[in-house]
Formats: sequence, structure tokens, C-alpha cells
Amino acid sequence: DAVNIDRVLEEIKNDDWISHSRLVQTATGVREVSKQLQRRPIRRAVRNVMIVTKARDNELVYLTRELAMWLLRTPRYGSDIGVNVYVDAKLRHSKRFGAASIVDEDSRFPSMLHYWSPDLCWSQPEKFDLVCTLGGDGTVLFTSWLFQRIVPPVISFSLGSLGFLTNFEFEKYKQHLNTIMGDEGMRVNLRMRFTCTVYRNGTPGGEVEEGEQFEVLNELVIDRGPSPYVSNLELHGDNELLTVVQADGCIFSTPTGSTAYSLSAGGSLVHPDIPGILLTPICPHTLSFRPMVLSDTMLLRVSVPRNSRATAYCAFDGKGRVELKQGDHVTITASQYPFPTWNTRAATQKGFESKPGSQAASDNDDEPEWD
Amino acid sequence: DAVNIDRVLEEIKNDDWISHSRLVQTATGVREVSKQLQRRPIRRAVRNVMIVTKARDNELVYLTRELAMWLLRTPRYGSDIGVNVYVDAKLRHSKRFGAASIVDEDSRFPSMLHYWSPDLCWSQPEKFDLVCTLGGDGTVLFTSWLFQRIVPPVISFSLGSLGFLTNFEFEKYKQHLNTIMGDEGMRVNLRMRFTCTVYRNGTPGGEVEEGEQFEVLNELVIDRGPSPYVSNLELHGDNELLTVVQADGCIFSTPTGSTAYSLSAGGSLVHPDIPGILLTPICPHTLSFRPMVLSDTMLLRVSVPRNSRATAYCAFDGKGRVELKQGDHVTITASQYPFPTWNTRAATQKGFESKPGSQAASDNDDEPEWD
Amino acid sequence: DAVNIDRVLEEIKNDDWISHSRLVQTATGVREVSKQLQRRPIRRAVRNVMIVTKARDNELVYLTRELAMWLLRTPRYGSDIGVNVYVDAKLRHSKRFGAASIVDEDSRFPSMLHYWSPDLCWSQPEKFDLVCTLGGDGTVLFTSWLFQRIVPPVISFSLGSLGFLTNFEFEKYKQHLNTIMGDEGMRVNLRMRFTCTVYRNGTPGGEVEEGEQFEVLNELVIDRGPSPYVSNLELHGDNELLTVVQADGCIFSTPTGSTAYSLSAGGSLVHPDIPGILLTPICPHTLSFRPMVLSDTMLLRVSVPRNSRATAYCAFDGKGRVELKQGDHVTITASQYPFPTWNTRAATQKGFESKPGSQAASDNDDEPEWD
Amino acid sequence: DAVNIDRVLEEIKNDDWISHSRLVQTATGVREVSKQLQRRPIRRAVRNVMIVTKARDNELVYLTRELAMWLLRTPRYGSDIGVNVYVDAKLRHSKRFGAASIVDEDSRFPSMLHYWSPDLCWSQPEKFDLVCTLGGDGTVLFTSWLFQRIVPPVISFSLGSLGFLTNFEFEKYKQHLNTIMGDEGMRVNLRMRFTCTVYRNGTPGGEVEEGEQFEVLNELVIDRGPSPYVSNLELHGDNELLTVVQADGCIFSTPTGSTAYSLSAGGSLVHPDIPGILLTPICPHTLSFRPMVLSDTMLLRVSVPRNSRATAYCAFDGKGRVELKQGDHVTITASQYPFPTWNTRAATQKGFESKPGSQAASDNDDEPEWD
Repeated sequence: DAVNIDRVLEEIKNDDWISHSRLVQTATGVREVSKQLQRRPIRRAVRNVMIVTKARDNELVYLTRELAMWLLRTPRYGSDIGVNVYVDAKLRHSKRFGAASIVDEDSRFPSMLHYWSPDLCWSQPEKFDLVCTLGGDGTVLFTSWLFQRIVPPVISFSLGSLGFLTNFEFEKYKQHLNTIMGDEGMRVNLRMRFTCTVYRNGTPGGEVEEGEQFEVLNELVIDRGPSPYVSNLELHGDNELLTVVQADGCIFSTPTGSTAYSLSAGGSLVHPDIPGILLTPICPHTLSFRPMVLSDTMLLRVSVPRNSRATAYCAFDGKGRVELKQGDHVTITASQYPFPTWNTRAATQKGFESKPGSQAASDNDDEPEWD
Repeated sequence: DAVNIDRVLEEIKNDDWISHSRLVQTATGVREVSKQLQRRPIRRAVRNVMIVTKARDNELVYLTRELAMWLLRTPRYGSDIGVNVYVDAKLRHSKRFGAASIVDEDSRFPSMLHYWSPDLCWSQPEKFDLVCTLGGDGTVLFTSWLFQRIVPPVISFSLGSLGFLTNFEFEKYKQHLNTIMGDEGMRVNLRMRFTCTVYRNGTPGGEVEEGEQFEVLNELVIDRGPSPYVSNLELHGDNELLTVVQADGCIFSTPTGSTAYSLSAGGSLVHPDIPGILLTPICPHTLSFRPMVLSDTMLLRVSVPRNSRATAYCAFDGKGRVELKQGDHVTITASQYPFPTWNTRAATQKGFESKPGSQAASDNDDEPEWD
Repeated sequence: DAVNIDRVLEEIKNDDWISHSRLVQTATGVREVSKQLQRRPIRRAVRNVMIVTKARDNELVYLTRELAMWLLRTPRYGSDIGVNVYVDAKLRHSKRFGAASIVDEDSRFPSMLHYWSPDLCWSQPEKFDLVCTLGGDGTVLFTSWLFQRIVPPVISFSLGSLGFLTNFEFEKYKQHLNTIMGDEGMRVNLRMRFTCTVYRNGTPGGEVEEGEQFEVLNELVIDRGPSPYVSNLELHGDNELLTVVQADGCIFSTPTGSTAYSLSAGGSLVHPDIPGILLTPICPHTLSFRPMVLSDTMLLRVSVPRNSRATAYCAFDGKGRVELKQGDHVTITASQYPFPTWNTRAATQKGFESKPGSQAASDNDDEPEWD
Repeated sequence: DAVNIDRVLEEIKNDDWISHSRLVQTATGVREVSKQLQRRPIRRAVRNVMIVTKARDNELVYLTRELAMWLLRTPRYGSDIGVNVYVDAKLRHSKRFGAASIVDEDSRFPSMLHYWSPDLCWSQPEKFDLVCTLGGDGTVLFTSWLFQRIVPPVISFSLGSLGFLTNFEFEKYKQHLNTIMGDEGMRVNLRMRFTCTVYRNGTPGGEVEEGEQFEVLNELVIDRGPSPYVSNLELHGDNELLTVVQADGCIFSTPTGSTAYSLSAGGSLVHPDIPGILLTPICPHTLSFRPMVLSDTMLLRVSVPRNSRATAYCAFDGKGRVELKQGDHVTITASQYPFPTWNTRAATQKGFESKPGSQAASDNDDEPEWD
């Protein structure tokens, strides 16, 4: 068995005291382990490829067909045929996609072309060895939403201008996919997600009930919604009160999301490798409430005080407006289910071209229908 | 021997491939190790205490005397007497400090009261088990400057308003020092420093020569100095060109320094645990050049192009103005010598009161004389 | 008749051409006229004083009683008695205010103590020679709302910390009011208001109907309200398209409002004398959309395109949420009804202590009930 | 005689008191006069045209020749010949410009082609009816520097991308100049400049001596120059202390300059018609020191306290670094010599494309040599 981190943790626990120089050495060592891990390739034959796109966009449906056929046909891993392909169940009867004419081409294709549904993603995420997204950043966020637990490695193709999440041109899909399914294996970046959990506590003294839970790849936004009043949200970190949020709202953003809504509100750009949680206020009422980057080991909790005049609203990656009533709260933690994106050396150097992007996911009408 | 990080690294290296789920598990584990390490107390009897203060400030000299006598007298570690004390060699003949009357008190004191000099800090930093600073943030930065390699654990006492680096009131020094020298041991935060190295390359085709090297705790500032022209600095990360800096200058700040100069220039507040390098432009000439947080695993290099019209100036923690001429460059890396500061649970929750502080170290005339 | 600006305008119109040096001279002259006007005292005996406060706040009601009695009793303008006082009609039967015991004091008081209602402010604003507000900035905004056309001179007393609009301490009310009703006369600043008019155009090709109209003293905010989608608002200036607003919303603020919501969103502080309209975007999606100050001679129009996915919401001085549907628009112009505030030399030098204040009028629960 | 502003001012002065409604009416009237003035065309035949460009740039010299010949040849104002042309005295013997071959073309040209020097601009600015600049924003700033008192109307042609000051394409010069010298006359915008005057007061109790004086079109920057220390500059407005500047420096910018250095430091964009002075701090040490817009009727004074540890440096439109020593001060007032720029209706709508431009005048090596 390879790396036994559990044993390391066990050892640390048993060692009540640590000398000063030992502490410095170990901390440095842990950083080095972390660095090396980013460079590990994943050993896995890609047998099942899922394609995610916006099923209502005609051009994207044609490209999905093109990509699917190429994946089915191109010989892989010593066989004379390609790999299994999963497309959106909404395309099953689409004339534009033309499933019938695809499977007619080869007698083996009918057993290789499959359809995915949100249910399948939910129940059997490990079925997919790779996900290809076609479209904008909204499609990537939708993919994140589909996989609320384990996420397969994702490669995102853009058709127009490259976004922060969609950094591969569709034109070069053959080259990139041949690399991934070749000898080198696949190197991924593990992008942090947050696990956001809503808790309800309608009646004073009553039980706290767990409500909605979402994994977010970009950000959780909490604001006053339609209310003219601003709720004085309480922010706790590791169970201690950090501040009372006096602002129109606040954004809890991952480093990935630092190029999106958080940037519009004045947050810094943060490299995806940084294990931090960005807290960016929206129109803060005090000049001293500045954008900040918190440690991702912190358990954050935002609550609407029971005596608050107003409620608050949560949006998860720009979707799923959930109301927090008086007494409710939402927790934010670094997720144990990161979002792996394919990573080439070429894709590493980025982030010096900053423009707010993929904001609210809905600016550019780019996302698939969420239901 | 307790935690064997080397073995972990070895194992990772030997394991050419890693499965996807294994990668995710290991990465999560490493984060957990890192988290636990922050909570380790240091096992060390504090036998030698160094006191740093501004030797020209009369009030501070009196307080140094008070603190020194208390440390010498108060019985520690089963003995009927206190610990060794090192004060600034500049106080050796100070009437206000009154060394003669101190050592007269007890026949053992003459061998317990010592004097430190910058040379001693340089050559034998491990001599000191603890450093107490009295004064403002400038005194803490001066301490960082004294220890260019290993830094002993530091506790910083403030006399007036608490700063970001000086977060303990001098009034409570007995309580805090009794805790540190008590049964609990000392828990420290390892604050990142940068190693900044200047390289000279005066003649085209000539040898590159290593010049000045400084450890900084707050920030390195590179600006145009007295020149009316702006040099187009080139910024490389891991040997790839990231950007040409079009700005009056730029600040490379540690998370510790995020409350100082970087904040004035619009940077975010960054929790000291975050392993990041803040790059904050000063008056950028393009709106897209935004403050950013880079990974601390990156090797940064800033160079003045050989054809540049102007030179540039470096300031290290607000000191040591060094000119970078055409062809010169400076590198910035996370240092292997972090700055350990004493950490109580109470001191952990901070950073929501933001004001730019300790900027340029010289605003408040607070620092000891650097020579 | 004193200053005949109409004649000046007439002369300018008749003079088709103007020489270059004459143009410069005239422009400089006009600036000087404008400057002198700010220093004119108003010649008016203050016979009728209106008091505005939050009728539900017990302490404020007691202070209103105190102020009213002092105004009624204190001899003015050669008479042995004071001036007429108008208080909120809601206090007519308030036990705390105790109107009965006030008018019992002097047989002339029953004809001197009056009650104001919003209707009276609307129909006969010139009835009042002076308005005193007691409370916070919200009370001043409420006063602005009461007077949708001509506004009497206003002096605002604060009970606690001074705000931007409430810059006189209640404790010194006798001193200030004695000055105003003394020989010096009253010098006022004319604070710009905006006239904001909503136009409805529900059916393509149909008639445009004028809807709500409000005078605002601080700002008009247009945002997406509860909608997750951002409407691409079109902004016209003097009938030419200036930009399509890509932001969560935008704020049109007067210089007076520059210390309020606009400041939270990153706008500059603007001196009340500046004839400008601040346009401050809320979370702009492009970095080049910066806060700006437009000329107050511009007619601004914000419209929701007929094909917009979302509607937009207007708030006038933090109140009166009005929905703009597809095809609707709202115009913003400098009002011909400015808001005169009493101005002492001492009150002139301000604005270097910036904190966002009076934001949304509702933060501090400070405003009277608007109905 | 046309508009008699002096009489208006006289009338205002004689009218000790003014009624409230009269005050509002007059103020509104003055604004209207001001608005109308902006729309006045200037009645003047353009007999003498000055061309300013960068004499060392070969391409620009060729274009200067082209423009000069076209102006000399093209019949104007009923004559069969063009107008007088003044070019830089540095071109007198330039082979590229080729003065000899120009004057050979027509026997009248030798008396029509003239040379300007800075001295001539200083002593006889009214000699020129129009100035054409060829080049970037730096050339416009240079033109402003040439005319320290009255400035002739200026039209600025750009060769590449249009700047904020250079908003006409050189390609269309014939069209634009035909309009200006046609029947319509010339409409100009009067852009505010500042008069900045340095005062020396080296010895305590000694006389204050007037030092350098500059007219600036973009901005005055005061910073700490090469000093590591920040001077605590004192800022007075109309002789009252407004604030002690705690920052790396501060920028006093005209609305014209709001797109230049001030924007880099976080200032708002301000429409050129706004009579305001932008005060934008550079890296302020307190979060409450925000960019602001002051009234242009204010007399501003920045002084270096006599007990200051450091001196300060002034730069006028990016040039002329002048040191302010302890006891010295500099005053800033709206100039009585504005900078008139040609204004077409098409050029009016601008300012929504913001990028910091013409900053420090020296970024793009664009300016002529200043000596």
C-alpha cells in the first residue's frame, strides 16, 4: 500500500510534544507532500466518457454528436474500437443528435452509446472515467451540481473565448483527448469545493433540522434578496463569533470562484492551489470590512439572528435561491469532494488576465436548464 | 521517532501512478496533518530569554529592566531562581537600565544576565528559547531582521494599542509568561517569511552575481524610487513570464504583511495560515491588473530588462533600499525559516478589525535603530 | 429688482457669436456669481417652525415637547412671545407629548401650536419658514420625501453621533436657533435633489404612460431585486446610448448621497457644492465600468429592454421599491427643487471623516414610519 | 456689449438679503447660463495655425509637413490661398521637414510659414488662432505647458488609438479643419487647469518667497519621492486644516486628468464639465481616507510641516520634479486660464471606456522633449 497518511496522523496524535525544530521540519515536509501530490498522474484507463452540454443549443448538439462519434470510433487501449460514451438523456430522441444513425454505423455501437441522467450521476458517479463539457463556465458549474459527491475528472472545452473554467479550445479536442487516453496518464488539479448545509430552527428552543445541502465550485452568496432591510448576519468561525456582517451581503468564494462574482465585489484573484476561503463583502457599510482570505480548515457558520428584522437568501453557484429565516443558519466547509480538472503544463500559467467571469452563471445565458 | 514525513515523501515518489480516489484521499489527509501540526505544543524548557526593544526610548528601557528582573527572580522549573536573560548590548552601560544594581541583588545574577548583539543572533540563534519584544510592530520587524535564519519563538508585548504583530498587552506579561513556562508548553504559529535574493548582472553576457539577501516578514516592495519613469518590470513564476508589471510598483506580501502596506494598496486581508504570496500592484496602469494571491510553492523572479529606461528600488520590510539596475533581478520564495509567534486560543480569532498598520515600518517612528 | 439672470440669458441667446476671450471671461464670471450666491443670507423672519421626528420613539417625543415649548415661549422679533410650531399630527393625542398641558400654559398657545400632516406639506410647503428634524439621517430623508416640491430651510439635530445630514447636536439647539432667528439671517446650502420619473410602456407600440415620480436627496438605486438574473439595463444620456449596464445594479447618487450607499459600492466622496450626478455600479461585471461623476445638466434615462430576461427594481432614498418591467424606463434629472440646509461656517469644513452612513435608510431603524 | 456678468455680480453684492425662493431661482438661472455658454461657438477667422508635435519622431515630421502644406495651399475665407502656419523652430533646418521645398512652391509661402518657440508661446499666445497637435496625450500636455497663460483653441490628432485628450483621427484632418474654418465656427470645451504655486519658507520667522508656478491640465502629484519616510503633509482648504495626509502621496487631479493617474490610484471618472478638484490618495494608511471631489472654488494648500522628518516632491503633469522642504507649501486653485479643446457633437459622448491613460506622461515615451 502506497502512502499511509492515516498512519502519519496517528503518529502525530501519539506524540504529545514536539520540539521546535521538529515542528518546522514536519510542517515543511507536509507542504512538500502536498506539492508532489499535485504532480501525480492518475492511473486509469478511460473506458467511459460522459459528455455534458446545453441540450437546447442546436450547435452544441451537433458538436456533441461529432465528439461522441469520434470517441466511439477511435481505437483505444489495444482494441480496434473506441470507448463508451454517455450523453444527456434529453438527446435520446433528438433529431439533431440522431442517435439512430450513430448506432447504425457499427454493430457494437448500440451497446456503447449510453444516456446519463442526474439520477445516474448521483447514484453511480464512479461509472464515469472522464467528463467532457462543451460550452461556457455555466456548463462546468452545472457539472459540479450534477456530482454532489465524488466528481470524475473533467475536461472543459470552450467554443468561443476561453473562460477560467473552460480553458481548452474545442478545435483541439482530438489532440487533448489522445493525450489523456495515451501513455502519459492524466494529471489533474483538485479544485476545492465547499459543502454548504442549511439548518432550520423555526421555533425557539426547538430542534435544529438539517435542510438543503449543496457542493459549490464557485461561491455561496448570501444577501438580503428582495428585502429593503439588511439582515445583520452573524458569522462564526470554529464556533467563535468573528463579526456581524454589515453589508448588502457576502460572498464565500473558492479560489476557483475568485475570478467570478467575488472579483466584481472587489476580491483578490486567488490561485486555485491556495487552500483558502474568500470572504468578500457586497457593499459593506463599514470601510474596515475588507475582502479577506480565511483558512480552509475553518468551519464557517452564517446565521440570521432570531430577532432580525429581515431574512436572508442563499444562492449556490448562482442557483437555488434558498431563504434563511430567523433562527436558521448555513455552514460552509471545505468539501471532501474536490472537483478534478485536467491539467496540462500549458494550462498552469494563467490568471493574469483578469475579468470577472461566469458571474451568477446566468449572465450569458450559457447554462443548461437546471430543474 | 515520531512523524516520518520523509518516508511519506519517499512512498509517494515510488508510487508512479495513483488512482483517482487515492489521490483525493491523500490530499485530504495531508491537509489534516497540516491542521494538526498547528495545534502541537512545543516541548522545551525556556532557559534563555532575549528581550528586544528600542534602546533609545526611556520608558521602554525602564520596562525592560522590570521585565528582566522579574525573569531573573521568579523561580522556574523546580529551581528557586529564574531564567537567563539577554538584553541589548546597547544597555550595558545605560544608567536607566542600571545593570549594576540588578546583578547586585543576587550573587547568581551576574552569570544570568547577558547581552545580545546582532552578531550573536546571527551566529547562535538557537541560544535563545524565547524572544520577548517590547514596542510596536517595528520592533517585531527588527527582530525578524536580526534572525536571518532560524528564529526562536517570539512573544510581542505592546504598550499602547495592539497591533497585528504585537497582540499582547504588556500589563499582562506575568500571566502570559507564566503560561509559556508552565506545564502546558508553548503553541506557536509559524508565520511565513520570504527569502529575497538580489542578483547582479551588470554586463551583457557576463556572470550573474548573487547580491544582498533578506528574510522579510511583511513584504518586499519594488517601485520606481525617485525616477519619474516607470520601469516595465518583468515578473516570472517558475521560469515562465507571468506578466510585465505596468504600475508604479508592486508589493510581494506575506499573509502577515497583508494588514500593512498591501492593504493600503488595495490587497485583501489574508489569514496567516494561508500558504500564499500576495502580489499587490501600486497604482496599476491597467484596470485588469488586480491584487492576487499566488501559491507559495512558486519561485518568483522580478527583473529590470536590460533595455529599460529606468531602474527600480527594493525595500525589505520597509528598510534597506536597494537599487536594481538594468539586467538585475530579485527572487522571492517562501522561506525555510518561518517566524514562530506565540499563540493562545484567545489570539486566534482576529483580523476582522482591519486598518493598514506598521506600514513602511517608519510611520510611527517606532522601530529601533537599524544600522 | 435685484439680479436679472433672465436678462443675462436673453443677452447670451441674442449674441450668436462670442469671441474666445469673451467666452472665457463670461464663464469665469458665471462661476463667481455661483460662488457668491452660496454666501447670501436669506431675509426672512421665521414665524412658523415645523418639527419632524419619529413619532414612535418615546425619548424623541419628550424632546419634541421640550423644543416646541421653548419655541412657543421664547420672545422673538420684538414680540413678548415665540413663534408658531407645527408638530406631527400623530402627536395630537399622545400622552407623552401632552398637548393639553402645553396649551394650558398661555392663552395664546392654543392658536400657536399646530399639527402638520403629509397632505399639508404637499399642498402648502411655503407655510413653513423652517423645519427642525430630531433624529438620524433617516428623519432627514423622510423630510425630503414629505416635500416633493419646494422645501423650506431645514436644520437637523442629532441626538447621538453626528451624521452627514444631521450635523448639529441637539444639546445646542437654543444657541443655533437663536442665531437663525437673530439679526444675521440664515445662510443655507442648496443641496441638489434628483427628480426621478418612472414611465410605463407595457405594450409594444403603445403609449408611454408617466408613473411614479419622486424627489430623492441621497440616491436612486436600480438593481435586479429578487431575480437571479441580471437585466442588461440601457443607460442613455441626453438621448444617446452611453452604456449597457452589466452589473448587479447601479446607484445614481447626489453629492449629498456620496457618503451613503454609493460609498459602500466604491464611489468617491463628492462635496455637496459640486453639480454632479454620481453613477456608481454595484458589483460591475467588467473592470472598466468604474464609478463616475456625470454633469448634472444631463438628462439620464435607464430602461429595461423589451427583450430583457429580467425586470429591475428602483428604490428612492432606500424606499418605495418600484418594479420596472420590460419596456419601462426611469429618468433622472437634477431637480428644480433643491433641499436647503442651514449652514454655519463651522459646518462647512467636513467630509474628511468618511464612513458609509444613512445607507438604505433602514439600517438603524431610524426613520419615521413611511406609509 | 453682450453679456455683462460684472453687472450681475455688482447687483448681487448690493442686494444684502435675498429671499429663499429668489435664491433658488437665481442659482438655477446661473446654472442655465453656464450650460448655454458651453454651446456658444467662437467667432473668429483662423488666420494662424500652430502645429505641435514630437520633433524627433520621423514619421510625425513627415505628417507635419503634409499638414502644413495643406494649410498653406487650401483657399480660405474668400482668398485664393490658405492660412499662416507655425511649426516648431527645431524643424527649421530639418531635412525631413524640408522647409526650402515648401516655400519654393508659391511666392507667398515664405511670408506664411513661420516658426514657433517656447518664448513666442509665452509672450504672444494670442498670435495663434488654433493649435493642432499630432501625437499622443503627452503632446497635448506639452502644449498645455507651452501656454502658461492664455491657451488658443486646440485640436488634437491621434495617429494610433484615440486617447482621452487626442480624440480625433489624423486621417480625417481635412474634414475636421474644413469644419472649423467653415461657416459654423468653432465650439470649444473649456477644460479646467490648476494654477499650482510653490512657496518657500526656509527659515522660521522668515519671509515666504514665491517659487515655481505651473499650470497643469491633468494633475499635480505630491509624494515622498526617494525618501523611505512618509511626510505628514498638511492639507488646508480656504485656510482651514482639512486633514493631515497619511499616505504615500496624493494626487490633485482635474476632471480631464481623472482618466490618468488618479484612476490608477482608485479615483472616479469625472466628466470634464464638472467644476471639481479630485483629491485621490496614493496608498492611504487609513481606510477612511477615500478619493474625493472637492469644489473648484476652494483654495487648497499643501504644506510640509517644519518638524517633518521628510520632504516631499511635486510633479506637474508628470514633469518638473520640485522638492518641497520643511516649511514650504504649494497652493492649488482652479486656473483663470482654461484649456479650450475643439468639441464636436460626436466627441461629447465619451468616458464609458475607462482605462488609465497618459499616466505620468512618460509611459509611452510619447512626449516631445521638455527642456
